[in-house]
Amino acid sequence: MKRDNRSLPLIVGRKPLLEALKQGKFIEKIFMLRTATGEEVNTLKKLAKDKNIPISLVPAEKLNKLTRVEHQGVVAWTSLLEYVELQEGISHVVEQGGTPLFVMLDGVTDVRNVGAIARTALCCGAQALILPVSSSASLTEEAVKTSAGALNKILLCRTPSVQQAMDVLKLNGIKICGSHMDTNLPLHKADLTVPCCIVMGAEDKGISKEVIKRADELIHIPMSSEFDSLNVSVATGMMLYEAQRQRILE
Amino acid sequence: MKRDNRSLPLIVGRKPLLEALKQGKFIEKIFMLRTATGEEVNTLKKLAKDKNIPISLVPAEKLNKLTRVEHQGVVAWTSLLEYVELQEGISHVVEQGGTPLFVMLDGVTDVRNVGAIARTALCCGAQALILPVSSSASLTEEAVKTSAGALNKILLCRTPSVQQAMDVLKLNGIKICGSHMDTNLPLHKADLTVPCCIVMGAEDKGISKEVIKRADELIHIPMSSEFDSLNVSVATGMMLYEAQRQRILE
Repeated sequence: MKRDNRSLPLIVGRKPLLEALKQGKFIEKIFMLRTATGEEVNTLKKLAKDKNIPISLVPAEKLNKLTRVEHQGVVAWTSLLEYVELQEGISHVVEQGGTPLFVMLDGVTDVRNVGAIARTALCCGAQALILPVSSSASLTEEAVKTSAGALNKILLCRTPSVQQAMDVLKLNGIKICGSHMDTNLPLHKADLTVPCCIVMGAEDKGISKEVIKRADELIHIPMSSEFDSLNVSVATGMMLYEAQRQRILE
Repeated sequence: MKRDNRSLPLIVGRKPLLEALKQGKFIEKIFMLRTATGEEVNTLKKLAKDKNIPISLVPAEKLNKLTRVEHQGVVAWTSLLEYVELQEGISHVVEQGGTPLFVMLDGVTDVRNVGAIARTALCCGAQALILPVSSSASLTEEAVKTSAGALNKILLCRTPSVQQAMDVLKLNGIKICGSHMDTNLPLHKADLTVPCCIVMGAEDKGISKEVIKRADELIHIPMSSEFDSLNVSVATGMMLYEAQRQRILE
């Protein structure tokens, strides 16, 4: 989120954004004046919520930094990518005869890590990346570049929160596997041949309490030394390699 | 090599560098005026060769950019890290009762990838990283930072070339496993429980012809889609995870 956001084309003003949303344009993020009110603002908020678009409520200075054009308290980044709803994504994979292998990012906000994970995921046969709106990075040009194009090819499912994503996954019989250091189940003993979603947390905090509580399994990557600090994209690669290995051998 | 080389402390001038080398200081790289001659220059070249220190022959402009001090045609970066000779590294690991699991970088020049690989290697129980002088990145502060300190903990073996490293590995009975897309042996079928060295190539070119020719095994990571572009540090992670998995299960 720190870098090249300027590379994302802007939509400036209430009416232009309403129009874009109604036309089904993909929006990465909306910045709205903290004090903005009115009917259009309410409609915008509702549409954004329906479409899982993150809204950031900001002071006027932030908006003025984003654009010099008269913005009426509303500026949005259009997305470089296309998003689907999680249920839609699951249905698509199942209809195609696939056994779901998904990756959910729970607080991974470094765009380069997100890009690298998408790249690995696509290589290893994962069909979708689940991005909770509440804790995800904006997918900038840098993310797309780091992904070597994978972000354009893998299904991107935006969901309001990790909790809601878990609800949908459970409803669809998809096993939730949280990556967690403090568990007895080593990666190679977890069954990843069944429909499953691997949840990866941020490098510093790990997966959130909700995932620790509600995951069907918590899995750790076996480490041989006291040095146990894997980069999140490398750790995801190991998880997905293991899934791939098990599915090939099955 | 592109970034923070300025963070490496300099040794400037012929006598200071000779003195540093004789004292056994670790030198990352020597820059020498292309036209430099004389007895001291010859001694410097010989010492550098003996100690596997890369020498870059450069025009005066390059040296003048590195320092404003009178350099007599010689400037060197001191190393942030300690290097050992490959044979020394192997003997050390074997004496400690370890089964060698090494990673050799064949043309991986991105310092962040080198740092990430060191980090993963240490997590997965690899004991040494082999860095051929002819095709390696200088290990800058950025590399050390990306490695999360792993570069300070893992054995760093600098060798003159990939070929010479392979000679030493073969003499010591260490299997050379080249990572190569175009091979019939998938990673999970390779035996990584024996003493072995995984050779990773640059993302664009892959491993060099010499390694393809002389490796004991060429291994590919199974990919499930037509998208087969793994980041080199993620690919190394998968290789090392598989080695770790096999060694735990043994």
